[in-house]
Amino acid sequence: MNTYIKVPQDIEKRSFEIIGEELGDKINKFDETTLPVIKRVIHTTADFEYADLIEFMNDAINSGKEALKNGCKIYCDTNMIVNGASKMVLSKFNCEAYCLVADSEVAKEAKERGVTRSIVGMEKAAKDPSTKIFLIGNAPTALYQLKEMIERNEIEKPALVVGVPVGFVGAAESKEAFKSLGVPYITINGRKGGSTVAVSILHGILYQMYQREGF
Amino acid sequence: MNTYIKVPQDIEKRSFEIIGEELGDKINKFDETTLPVIKRVIHTTADFEYADLIEFMNDAINSGKEALKNGCKIYCDTNMIVNGASKMVLSKFNCEAYCLVADSEVAKEAKERGVTRSIVGMEKAAKDPSTKIFLIGNAPTALYQLKEMIERNEIEKPALVVGVPVGFVGAAESKEAFKSLGVPYITINGRKGGSTVAVSILHGILYQMYQREGF
Repeated sequence: MNTYIKVPQDIEKRSFEIIGEELGDKINKFDETTLPVIKRVIHTTADFEYADLIEFMNDAINSGKEALKNGCKIYCDTNMIVNGASKMVLSKFNCEAYCLVADSEVAKEAKERGVTRSIVGMEKAAKDPSTKIFLIGNAPTALYQLKEMIERNEIEKPALVVGVPVGFVGAAESKEAFKSLGVPYITINGRKGGSTVAVSILHGILYQMYQREGF
Repeated sequence: MNTYIKVPQDIEKRSFEIIGEELGDKINKFDETTLPVIKRVIHTTADFEYADLIEFMNDAINSGKEALKNGCKIYCDTNMIVNGASKMVLSKFNCEAYCLVADSEVAKEAKERGVTRSIVGMEKAAKDPSTKIFLIGNAPTALYQLKEMIERNEIEKPALVVGVPVGFVGAAESKEAFKSLGVPYITINGRKGGSTVAVSILHGILYQMYQREGF
């Protein structure tokens, strides 16, 4: 007979207890809105270094919650993020996550212009006024593109940007460069991040607003 | 003007060079089939600890390649893995990645039996003889379920199991317990892993077999 825990909500509850215990004194760096977010990031990565790397700027969580409450579109730079985001919880708030990098029109335009699909996808998304939140887990170019459009006043300031591209070339620099904009912003300093990290940050905010059934 | 690198294949090439440099002496732990895999895992996570945690057992990569060459189904325990796996490259080999946890029949049966959708999804997938490869990035219960079915001789031994569930409760134990089966197996010892890690391991194998255009 197996004795392992099979009930997902029991596993998650115990996981969060362990994370809280092992965070130790670092827990004091966080408040009641940021702690659930970093716990969820660590839950997703099993990597406590994220507690040192995560940064919340310009009232990011409250601004994000406000946009989510009012229903908004959330642009994601990978379809993996869209796929990982809880459609069930997003639909409770009339929110929707989407990505354009696999869009055939975007691919065509990117080829014609000789730029990446990430750039063209971000351009189109940022020009859609119902898109208030951006989750960027992969492409530094997407984050740079968004930065430039904000700087040129081509678009309204987003309600929240989760800028967590992972990687060795340009990722850390792109995340750092975004900080000067004064936009509500959550980032992971340095190289780390990725699609699952982006999803976990979104969920860390959403689950403060909505208690899932059984959890 | 921006001077950041915008061409994805240039970014990837330079990233792999940096990873090789920073791996240092650890590079000697790997051979020509395992090195591209660990490099891709590090590329995805920016976490060099994976070089210490990854383990390849029972000729895992060659066995996986053989199954991929012959065309097979790849069962994934999350839709994020399915979404992240390169459909373009898989289709070249007549392979297909799929996941059943969001399947309505699976959800119904799981509810009736009072077990997780991960367990029911794995049961159905493992009984499909065209499913030769398993990518498990999330649910220890899925890995345990597969283990039990192999032990009870209910199914043929898989060609490759990538068992990399991430987490604090049961994940490390589930990965360890699978090692005794003698199945071609790639795992991440300890708590780390996840959907993006599972995808990167698959791609680390696939891209040895297929050079993507422009890469």
